[in-house]
Amino acid sequence: MSDENDKTVSLPVSYYKNGSFTEGEDIVVREAPVTLYLNDQEFVTLVCSPGELKELAVGFLCSEGVLMKRENLKSILINEDDGLIWVETAVESTSQGMFLKRFVTSCCGRGRASFYFINDTRGVTQVESGLNVTPRDIFYLSEQLEKLSEVFKATGGAHSAALCTRDGVVFFYEDIGRHNAVDKIFGRCFLDDISYDDKILVFSGRISSEILIKVAKMGIPVIVSRSAPTELAVKLADQLGITVIGFAREGRLSVYTHHKRVTN
Amino acid sequence: MSDENDKTVSLPVSYYKNGSFTEGEDIVVREAPVTLYLNDQEFVTLVCSPGELKELAVGFLCSEGVLMKRENLKSILINEDDGLIWVETAVESTSQGMFLKRFVTSCCGRGRASFYFINDTRGVTQVESGLNVTPRDIFYLSEQLEKLSEVFKATGGAHSAALCTRDGVVFFYEDIGRHNAVDKIFGRCFLDDISYDDKILVFSGRISSEILIKVAKMGIPVIVSRSAPTELAVKLADQLGITVIGFAREGRLSVYTHHKRVTN
Repeated sequence: MSDENDKTVSLPVSYYKNGSFTEGEDIVVREAPVTLYLNDQEFVTLVCSPGELKELAVGFLCSEGVLMKRENLKSILINEDDGLIWVETAVESTSQGMFLKRFVTSCCGRGRASFYFINDTRGVTQVESGLNVTPRDIFYLSEQLEKLSEVFKATGGAHSAALCTRDGVVFFYEDIGRHNAVDKIFGRCFLDDISYDDKILVFSGRISSEILIKVAKMGIPVIVSRSAPTELAVKLADQLGITVIGFAREGRLSVYTHHKRVTN
Repeated sequence: MSDENDKTVSLPVSYYKNGSFTEGEDIVVREAPVTLYLNDQEFVTLVCSPGELKELAVGFLCSEGVLMKRENLKSILINEDDGLIWVETAVESTSQGMFLKRFVTSCCGRGRASFYFINDTRGVTQVESGLNVTPRDIFYLSEQLEKLSEVFKATGGAHSAALCTRDGVVFFYEDIGRHNAVDKIFGRCFLDDISYDDKILVFSGRISSEILIKVAKMGIPVIVSRSAPTELAVKLADQLGITVIGFAREGRLSVYTHHKRVTN
């Protein structure tokens, strides 16, 4: 789980208010580069919130389609102080070869057109789940996400993701990167062999196509955000059997796809 | 400038409010893949808001360090309907070769550690500018950004960037991607040969290290956001001579670096 202290730092700041400046200290969110070595080859460096590097590394490799079976993960070695992670996998050479092509797809607002149709159909299947949720469940879980978002409350500069059941939060992560927060969930579930078909992903950020694809790869039937979805995310969710709920706040919500799972 | 109509679409939605569902239509932000061919080679596909593809392509190439001199831009051909852009440049082979390494750095919350110290020092120099701004200027420009953010107001799913002088907005762009909005500013300024040393970038999103690097490459002395900066962005801004102003809203703001430019 998040350790707020690692993720923030106090910096000097000049506050302006009521017409004058005062010198003070502000809690600012940290960004730390972490370099991931896959099978002794430098693979990628992620800029992320410090901590939960095991979850991040595994979740990133799952998201990118490099790691798909638990038994293919041989070992993980982490040097937290220097931001170094060594992962050893039994992985088909193709996965590593295809990485850069896939990598280009995992960026903020940047991706290959083919992404949605070729590279990342690997591990993406229709989400089959009989899960039902009520608006009351959704509002309760959204409140829990807000309560847990300590880094955001302290800095205004973090994204939160919570894997939930109808009853409450199972795993919660905060990270400066929207993708990282969801990857940490993915990694934790992969490591703990958590099933997805009864889960709900409650997310602080916009539901973009890239976030939706991660949810589809996990096989989570419902994604909830207090923010907006994009058209492409809604189209993909419709095709992949995922319920997209946006603007879940203040007793309101909008269901964009597979409404059947949301019953009053 | 942004064309709201291209950037949004109406989708069916089930609204929940006051205990019951009603069927309706919602305005949702669009995500469109655009493939950029550089000197007849497929270079990258960006997922972005439709429109302003010329600015996006040029700004992306400027941000990535591929395009640094106006005379190196030979031609741009755009097929808006199919999302295809062909750019011809006179570019040293190294730039294209170094692209993928650089590309990996330009993602949301993902970057190489070396990014800040090797690859992207290309085109990054200390920002020298005698520009002074008052809190009153900043609040006025922040209000202008908000007024112009039609796509955000309609969908809740876009980021805004405005290149300003103390007197008002020069260029404004909205895009689903934070990086894209700033790249569109970069591209427009490159095409119109706009000087930066008297400019202010007013931005809707968090000031991350990657956004700060773009600002540094342009040579803009002041960046303003209604949101938070990250520690790494503040450190880079301090080193590069850029004034970082965060949380500029409701008559308050926080100056994190180079306070000398902000006078009451």
